[in-house]
Amino acid sequence: MPADAAPLDFTSAFHGARALVTGGLGMIGAALSRRLLELGAEVTIVDALVPESSANLQNIASIRERVRLEFVDVRRTDAIRALLAGHDYLFNLAGQSSHTASMTDPLADLDINCRAQLPLLEACRQVIPQAPIVFASTRQIYGRPTYLPVDERHPLRPIDVNGVNKMAGEAFHMLYSDVFGLRATALRLTNTYGPGMRIKDARQTFVGIWLRKAIEGLPIEVWDGTQKRDFTYVDDAAEALLLAANCPHARGHALNIGGDTVVSLRELAELVIAINGGGEFVVRPLPEERRRIEIGDYYADDAQFRRLTGWRPRVTLEQGVGRSLAYFREHLQHYV
Amino acid sequence: MPADAAPLDFTSAFHGARALVTGGLGMIGAALSRRLLELGAEVTIVDALVPESSANLQNIASIRERVRLEFVDVRRTDAIRALLAGHDYLFNLAGQSSHTASMTDPLADLDINCRAQLPLLEACRQVIPQAPIVFASTRQIYGRPTYLPVDERHPLRPIDVNGVNKMAGEAFHMLYSDVFGLRATALRLTNTYGPGMRIKDARQTFVGIWLRKAIEGLPIEVWDGTQKRDFTYVDDAAEALLLAANCPHARGHALNIGGDTVVSLRELAELVIAINGGGEFVVRPLPEERRRIEIGDYYADDAQFRRLTGWRPRVTLEQGVGRSLAYFREHLQHYV
Repeated sequence: MPADAAPLDFTSAFHGARALVTGGLGMIGAALSRRLLELGAEVTIVDALVPESSANLQNIASIRERVRLEFVDVRRTDAIRALLAGHDYLFNLAGQSSHTASMTDPLADLDINCRAQLPLLEACRQVIPQAPIVFASTRQIYGRPTYLPVDERHPLRPIDVNGVNKMAGEAFHMLYSDVFGLRATALRLTNTYGPGMRIKDARQTFVGIWLRKAIEGLPIEVWDGTQKRDFTYVDDAAEALLLAANCPHARGHALNIGGDTVVSLRELAELVIAINGGGEFVVRPLPEERRRIEIGDYYADDAQFRRLTGWRPRVTLEQGVGRSLAYFREHLQHYV
Repeated sequence: MPADAAPLDFTSAFHGARALVTGGLGMIGAALSRRLLELGAEVTIVDALVPESSANLQNIASIRERVRLEFVDVRRTDAIRALLAGHDYLFNLAGQSSHTASMTDPLADLDINCRAQLPLLEACRQVIPQAPIVFASTRQIYGRPTYLPVDERHPLRPIDVNGVNKMAGEAFHMLYSDVFGLRATALRLTNTYGPGMRIKDARQTFVGIWLRKAIEGLPIEVWDGTQKRDFTYVDDAAEALLLAANCPHARGHALNIGGDTVVSLRELAELVIAINGGGEFVVRPLPEERRRIEIGDYYADDAQFRRLTGWRPRVTLEQGVGRSLAYFREHLQHYV
């Protein structure tokens, strides 16, 4: 447990509880699973090791013997239903998260992020109707912001297929809360980064490939660079998910999660290089296929979630980038 | 052409144009196809005669020999792609529209209203990238109104699966407009009624079964009855679709279509009986499965669409109910 993580008042809630984490081999799912174990929970990880995701067995290397691991695709409804039984919490993080991939293979994105959510929720209704459910949604559903910071009343106008499908996946969770009383909450995550993220390429976010280039001594490629963004360190995102699961006032709501700092991508590149102790970056115009789905500036107003749960980011961007670089420098061979 | 239909300024646009209407055997699609023929267009109707829809060959009895009719399900991507070629307009009306059916068979609803839209739009991009596309969306995507009348800025919070899927289907159209420049417009229709609607049961709207009961001399069953609604007569909806197709300022927008009158369901029942020249109604509490997805009062603010296109309803509720009763009295055997 990092020294800067404040004591949480929900620690007892997870002691002895059984939590199921879909997408548990991904960056966020693995961090969440580690924290759940620290809090005394039993953890089942469900993951299909989808090649385009951040799923990586190395992410759970330190807890592999302490979790139940099931290699099941969330699209396999019957298998998922059987796995749900007996669980007290569902953290529903499995998803295809690449914006560009969603444009080249839109139906695969749809089947995971949208279609699979329906039978999953139906199974929850039948098998674990009392269990809190937290769904990892995304800022992507807002599309290009029409004002900043973006709060939850901002219109939803996704500009990539991934955004539409996540919007529908989130809406199914809200619907099952409204109509069937499931205890579902959705968190609209912004750029989340940290140890365990995908660094092979820019599929998850550009941050991953930047970290890798810095470590490998290669120039970071910054597209445009003027875009402003906020960032959540993975452990802060995991804490948000845990708080959401135990916050009755958050149920039936879709709430923003942001960060503490807003920086331009150029500033972030400078920060990465400074913390890395060297390196360089080049600024390039946005590639055509990316320009079409580029959202410009985005940063979240997450005051609602902070007010409801007391959550705030504990890890600064400098600390987070430092920890990420240190982690990947040590474990590079498992991620490239 | 009804005597009260005002002259339209788009008449020449459709002369000699080739229009494809998915869901063309339904109430709205058939009315639209008739009007397109009047305006000199060539019409291809694509319909799968889905048993739960309002699709009915009787709806095009008067124009059967003048349209090309293809029995193809919109889920059959390759067949749809081949059919699109050579068309100048796409009116995309095919859909599953039953709210209750969407809750009992949610995946079928998803596959038609959400999933099938993606390959359809992809095919448009490749085959007819210049063609105006009008998508029939629905007020259902707003869920329970938080203020009235509902304008387009109202939050989207669907409370049935049909609403989520239509929301996603609409969003795909907007996305393909934003990203690929397709000339897509979505109209969020309210309760549309008229000759050719489904009157077998309450699947499409309750209005259908009310008309049938009145004609058959049976009591109309009014659930609750205090809910306020607005209604669009089918020919007015068809005119809105035609105007949307030729309004450049409406492209990339999802716009409300409402009516001129707001009435409670009890008032509507009284009106139906008065115009029918007799009958009775009973008021019952909402059935449980319906209560969960009941939206309460709804009526649209459609000022945006009226301003952009000059559209306004031409047919009063009294006229529309009268025409509907007269139509179904004459053709009852084809609809029960």
